[in-house]
Amino acid sequence: MSSDPTLDTLTSELDRAHVFHSWSAQGSLAPLVIAGGAGTRVWDHSGRTYLDFSSQLVNVNIGHQHPAVVAGIVAQAELLTTIAPSTANFTRGQAAERIAGLAPDGFEKVFFTNGGADANENAIRMARLVTGRDKVISRYRSYHGNTGAAIVATGDWRRIPNEFARGHVHVFGPYLYRSEFWATTPEEESARALHHLERVIQAEGPSTVAAILLESIPGTAGVMVPPPGYLAGVREICDRYDIVLILDEVMAGFGRTGRWFAFEDFDVRPDLITFAKGVNSGYVPLGGVIISDAIASQFDERVFPGGLTYSGHPLATAAAVATIDAMKAEGIVENARRIGEDSIAPRLAELAEKHAAIGEVRGTGVFWAMELVADRATREPLPAATMGAIKKELLARGLLPFVQDNRIHVVPPCIVTDDEVAEAFAAYDEVLTLVS
Amino acid sequence: MSSDPTLDTLTSELDRAHVFHSWSAQGSLAPLVIAGGAGTRVWDHSGRTYLDFSSQLVNVNIGHQHPAVVAGIVAQAELLTTIAPSTANFTRGQAAERIAGLAPDGFEKVFFTNGGADANENAIRMARLVTGRDKVISRYRSYHGNTGAAIVATGDWRRIPNEFARGHVHVFGPYLYRSEFWATTPEEESARALHHLERVIQAEGPSTVAAILLESIPGTAGVMVPPPGYLAGVREICDRYDIVLILDEVMAGFGRTGRWFAFEDFDVRPDLITFAKGVNSGYVPLGGVIISDAIASQFDERVFPGGLTYSGHPLATAAAVATIDAMKAEGIVENARRIGEDSIAPRLAELAEKHAAIGEVRGTGVFWAMELVADRATREPLPAATMGAIKKELLARGLLPFVQDNRIHVVPPCIVTDDEVAEAFAAYDEVLTLVS
Repeated sequence: MSSDPTLDTLTSELDRAHVFHSWSAQGSLAPLVIAGGAGTRVWDHSGRTYLDFSSQLVNVNIGHQHPAVVAGIVAQAELLTTIAPSTANFTRGQAAERIAGLAPDGFEKVFFTNGGADANENAIRMARLVTGRDKVISRYRSYHGNTGAAIVATGDWRRIPNEFARGHVHVFGPYLYRSEFWATTPEEESARALHHLERVIQAEGPSTVAAILLESIPGTAGVMVPPPGYLAGVREICDRYDIVLILDEVMAGFGRTGRWFAFEDFDVRPDLITFAKGVNSGYVPLGGVIISDAIASQFDERVFPGGLTYSGHPLATAAAVATIDAMKAEGIVENARRIGEDSIAPRLAELAEKHAAIGEVRGTGVFWAMELVADRATREPLPAATMGAIKKELLARGLLPFVQDNRIHVVPPCIVTDDEVAEAFAAYDEVLTLVS
Repeated sequence: MSSDPTLDTLTSELDRAHVFHSWSAQGSLAPLVIAGGAGTRVWDHSGRTYLDFSSQLVNVNIGHQHPAVVAGIVAQAELLTTIAPSTANFTRGQAAERIAGLAPDGFEKVFFTNGGADANENAIRMARLVTGRDKVISRYRSYHGNTGAAIVATGDWRRIPNEFARGHVHVFGPYLYRSEFWATTPEEESARALHHLERVIQAEGPSTVAAILLESIPGTAGVMVPPPGYLAGVREICDRYDIVLILDEVMAGFGRTGRWFAFEDFDVRPDLITFAKGVNSGYVPLGGVIISDAIASQFDERVFPGGLTYSGHPLATAAAVATIDAMKAEGIVENARRIGEDSIAPRLAELAEKHAAIGEVRGTGVFWAMELVADRATREPLPAATMGAIKKELLARGLLPFVQDNRIHVVPPCIVTDDEVAEAFAAYDEVLTLVS
């Protein structure tokens, strides 16, 4: 890490002049300059460092610049960066084998995409094709990607089997802290959410529903760990009505919960698993769908009408191979579990005890949310201005936080240490003291 | 290049066991193994080489494994592979500056995506937001990407401004060889296609049309270079009805036509330009939208409701910086133009003279199609089985072709030499002789 403050200025100027940012009004942005990183830390050109408790967009599960992953990328870059999806490539095959190997038995094939949105796109496409039905049920308070039009704009045969400009139905999911079902216990929330889901399916017409698409643990929406029995109940409902169950593991997967897949902690078996982010920590854009054999075999004789130029990209899959191997060799998934149980959970409980602004804490592994409220009784969310001030104060203390709505998500890389958790919680504590 | 035939076998086995391929039935696939490449050649693990006249999916414009681009990727991999889109990053800023610098005056900002589909997604999103209208007109015989559902499945506020599960209208575009307008000259085809477009707009209701989305030169659909006056006429129609003109330069841009953008050869100025592929030759997945200042400024105070985890990915944008710099330094765009005019065009004319199966040749730069017909008078396409045989015979001669429907697209990297063109045309000639 060298110090060159003029590069910070230049970077800011280039950014404001030429970079259009997502999910923002552009006029008043002043993005933080980041020049480099290692492990749980990132820094700017001036040498100012931040402890990364965001994992960026909850994707850098292995930490920044893991040497084995960088080496894997460099080696593949020197061999073959890219090749068309229609070819066979050794690195791509190795990645698919490793990824399928992490899934339950009966998941042998992987369809690669560029990220999570197109992973969900293609899982939905598969579900619609194998069921011959069009509706997809997902939940309010969820995020599955930002795409919705390109194939419908397309003017050749590839549009025809994909022209589903309809058929999205949303249900409420279990979220006891703000229950939509007047429930008072996790068990009641679970049972009522299942009842609600089944009633919507019956009202929509079960024979029209292709898929239920759920994040195993909804992420950006607030890290809502499903209550006992919920996911198993969804599986039963899917079986009852021949509906495909797609579990979105884009944010929750690849170590985030202290398991390879978040659904492993629940008694549920999906039909399709979508992934991105943690598969290679986003070092190179990559996503995909792990396909159950029952669904994959339906495309043995039938054309699968989906694809993209960079499907199974060698550089991206090389990063996945190196990431998975390093995570296994170094026990990184196990570390996430242990840190969650031994370090984050008790510290969060202590913090919630101390600060009235914390309405609820929930999570698992290195995947937690603190929900901040103006009033514990009414559970009124802390206002946006206060949340903005909290973010600013945390940054000023060298902590890069993940702040979403009225929540702080505690989502460090899976390699985080106890000392780093202690450091982050000292900052949370100071700042919560400041605002209360 | 080393020789290790067992790796070819292993790669094929891994591929068949674990890789689900796009746009295909999976049962009978036997994908070509590709292990490495350099310039215009790729090879398998046994040392068998192919002259790449496909540029893979028409994306490797700079050729395979360009040393400067590989070096750019390696340097960035060692510095910082990935960082969240909300930050400012020097490499990202440099890429945005360079890309905006290639566009006409009045295009200063770039929104980065992972590829072409999400580039078009976000251009459509911008057009709908700034016009307050929902319909998007595109043409039959076009391809704009494979996404269409993820944002509609999403359950939070990010869905609401994007819930356009409707509003795609398709028109016929100019394609004189198979005119939909009973035209007999390029000028007539152009005028009638414009009349047809305007009539559809009037019939749909101009106040409902947000955008016209066109590939400047439709690519996979058949390299249909627009006839004189067409794109300028589309611009006039857009101005008349306040419609946003999105030109999709995903396949046609970044040197493919011997220009940085294909539209430069026509008297037309778009409002939004989408790109991917050639921007960094696909070495790392990258796409984006170049935004006219008039549209960008509408999001100064207003939130742009779109985004994705890898927007402005450092590794991907490092590859773009290196690619653009190398293409400029080495005159690669100029080479594409010269090769098109001096080498490909005359050879295609000669080939068409000799082989009755060639119904039409058309194109520019290193972006050409030969349309193969069973009968020149009826223009009946050559059957799929014959096209399959042609592909197989070309591969047997060490030429990796781009075969689509009844066409061979002649789409080598922009760095192709006269000698390589001669080599490819010798193979085309032999195989066309064989099948006729």
